[in-house]
Amino acid sequence: MTAVELIQKKRDGRALSDTEIKAVISGYTGGDIPDYQMSAFLMAVYFQGMSDAETASLTELMRDSGIVLDLSDLPAPKVDKHSTGGVGDKVSLVLAPLVAACGVTNPMISGRSLAHTGGTLDKLEAIPGFNTQLDLATFKAYLKARKVALIGQTKDICPADKKIYALRDATGTVQSIPLICGSILSKKLAEDLDALVLDVKCGSGAIFPDPAYSEKLAHKLVQTAAKFGLKTVALLTQMEQPLGVSIGTWLETREAIDMLAGKPVARDFYNVTIALSAYMVWLGGLAPSFADAKEHVEHALQSGAALQRFREIVSHQGGDISILDAPGKYPAASHQCDVLAESSGFVHGLHARTFGQVAMLLGAGRRKKEDGIDYTAGILLHRKVGDRVQVGEKIATLFASQQPIASHLVERIQTAINVATEPCQPLPVFLGIVDENGKQVWSHDRYFNG
Amino acid sequence: MTAVELIQKKRDGRALSDTEIKAVISGYTGGDIPDYQMSAFLMAVYFQGMSDAETASLTELMRDSGIVLDLSDLPAPKVDKHSTGGVGDKVSLVLAPLVAACGVTNPMISGRSLAHTGGTLDKLEAIPGFNTQLDLATFKAYLKARKVALIGQTKDICPADKKIYALRDATGTVQSIPLICGSILSKKLAEDLDALVLDVKCGSGAIFPDPAYSEKLAHKLVQTAAKFGLKTVALLTQMEQPLGVSIGTWLETREAIDMLAGKPVARDFYNVTIALSAYMVWLGGLAPSFADAKEHVEHALQSGAALQRFREIVSHQGGDISILDAPGKYPAASHQCDVLAESSGFVHGLHARTFGQVAMLLGAGRRKKEDGIDYTAGILLHRKVGDRVQVGEKIATLFASQQPIASHLVERIQTAINVATEPCQPLPVFLGIVDENGKQVWSHDRYFNG
Repeated sequence: MTAVELIQKKRDGRALSDTEIKAVISGYTGGDIPDYQMSAFLMAVYFQGMSDAETASLTELMRDSGIVLDLSDLPAPKVDKHSTGGVGDKVSLVLAPLVAACGVTNPMISGRSLAHTGGTLDKLEAIPGFNTQLDLATFKAYLKARKVALIGQTKDICPADKKIYALRDATGTVQSIPLICGSILSKKLAEDLDALVLDVKCGSGAIFPDPAYSEKLAHKLVQTAAKFGLKTVALLTQMEQPLGVSIGTWLETREAIDMLAGKPVARDFYNVTIALSAYMVWLGGLAPSFADAKEHVEHALQSGAALQRFREIVSHQGGDISILDAPGKYPAASHQCDVLAESSGFVHGLHARTFGQVAMLLGAGRRKKEDGIDYTAGILLHRKVGDRVQVGEKIATLFASQQPIASHLVERIQTAINVATEPCQPLPVFLGIVDENGKQVWSHDRYFNG
Repeated sequence: MTAVELIQKKRDGRALSDTEIKAVISGYTGGDIPDYQMSAFLMAVYFQGMSDAETASLTELMRDSGIVLDLSDLPAPKVDKHSTGGVGDKVSLVLAPLVAACGVTNPMISGRSLAHTGGTLDKLEAIPGFNTQLDLATFKAYLKARKVALIGQTKDICPADKKIYALRDATGTVQSIPLICGSILSKKLAEDLDALVLDVKCGSGAIFPDPAYSEKLAHKLVQTAAKFGLKTVALLTQMEQPLGVSIGTWLETREAIDMLAGKPVARDFYNVTIALSAYMVWLGGLAPSFADAKEHVEHALQSGAALQRFREIVSHQGGDISILDAPGKYPAASHQCDVLAESSGFVHGLHARTFGQVAMLLGAGRRKKEDGIDYTAGILLHRKVGDRVQVGEKIATLFASQQPIASHLVERIQTAINVATEPCQPLPVFLGIVDENGKQVWSHDRYFNG
């Protein structure tokens, strides 16, 4: 079959065989299928989807396009976490040292900020000197020594995903469940894991603003991972408002340090971090039940073991650990601007996507991959959904150093804030869980919200 | 809006404004939008379609990407015909001289063979010496002198269509009603016409095998042309079996010469040619009714005036006119192979697309634009749908010179022939007409088939 015939077959809604999927993927990575045919194929997949067999085949081919790590000489369990991306999501910075302190080997390979979502790598690099570009040998050595290392994607792992993702980003084909599935799982399958915990975000700041699609994505991810024998659980978590109280790179790193240091943090950030970490410990076989795992995790946080592990990570990856003890010494943003409540009442909405986009425009993220980052830029929230507010009180503060804060960004944040007179409940943090058998089960809220 | 945002807007089914369509088309022709973004956009249009306003905007921008002819110094009426493409469609070769002989100025710019469909240019070039590559000044001079000239597309007219069509062909995005509409009408609007007659093919050999899509296409073409003040009628004609009895370049040219010379030809070929020609004469205001126009056209055929005009065209465009008087002297194909009836009965089907594909594979067409043409290659039909046949009688003959006739092609033609014992009516030639007000009206069959 020619490339055009393969495009037409997918366009017409027919499933491709393993051989045909291989012809597309290896044709594209090998240069026989040009970008313009691949992008038409990807758009056809966007509209027609892929069967479970096609998705598994795509995932396998993308995994096998590069090195598949062999971590058999590292202590089990090897468990990782992946988030589908959101606004204010600094969970990994706490979770990685926390689960390592609990005995989980966590070979975390993270991404960068793109569009309205933040990336763990940029948050780590906000710490002066922190080096995320370790080679795979150093990565493995660090994992052996401390069960955790935090690095960025390398050219060696899933090069097909790298090439295809860049094309999807430029052609409006990111929001496709099978393509997301292939992209996430190919990389996680290359990490030689025993188990995987997924944080599938739901709401305006998520990859799919419609929660129904997030749910479908969670099921497809768990089902596909199961085909490869990878025990996987997906938590559907709230992304209608930003997670925690900070959006930006350093602002989020600081919020993560606060949690590691035992300071009080926002309920949603705390609960999501603890739940994901506890699932990793439980799935990794280090606790007999989720409740036990949660206790284990909370103890590792309270005892300071997680902070100590984070200190070691920062130190060994070249970062300035003095900033962990005195985060207040970090350079302040040159510009800041408060956003005040325009009426009294209760906060009914803080539109996550708009907050993410404004944070990006302040300099905290990238419009294009080539753009630089202003580590001091971002937004702090003084209220969350459900909170009471009086007219004129601060709801948020915008920060930036590389440019003054444009008035249209302040206006845009005002459009993202919804205050009304009637009382409003806080948003639920967990919207559902897809367990390792692909069944959608209870919400974690009963564990955390009483 | 960025290119990605424009793709996403179309992907999500929202209509683009004139400015946004312009950003896409001029961005693409100007090189700011790369092929890979354009092909994703085209696939999004394939799935989401375009509103009437978007289609008109696309058509206008494509027309204005090149020269729009000014034929105001040529005698009215200026009328052209366009077919959406089929198998065995040699109508233009008869129609162009015929309507010119009736007083219509016909500035016909034709295309080449591609995939299973034949192109008028290749059929003309089967005549030794015939030159279809006239510059626009010579084209206009010939039109002035004889009301007709037959040329190929130039780089000067609708360069945007040329670039977009090549991309569509390579990315499975040909079969899109608004894109077809823009491609056809942009070129016809650049011809400075008073009226246009469209032959929208229906059936297995048509661009859309499903007749419902052909009908939609006909309506969209007539409606869009009306927005530009171009009086247009679309005839929906049968393309379930090949038109006439020949498929190929010289074979079809010879069948056209036969009709011009007054020899008996297949009913469908004759009736489609006469109906389209009569519509051109009628819409051009040269007859008070369709019946009068038809009489006018048939007289010009029977009197030899049309043949004489064709002789002049061939002569002035460098072709060997001796071949018109003695077509039997044309070099015979080196190889030929009869396809015999495998049972006795009536012909119920001659699958047009398969006949077109086999003719192409015999050498009569191009798989890729760069391929050459074997002018002697093709297929002759000895039966049409509705005809009686005895087992062992010839149904078709395959011809080729550049290669022996592969047995799998003979087998493939057998799969395209359906003979059954029960009697079968000939196929209707006309399936409907969309008049210049966009109304679908009577079938021409009552004029031609009693």
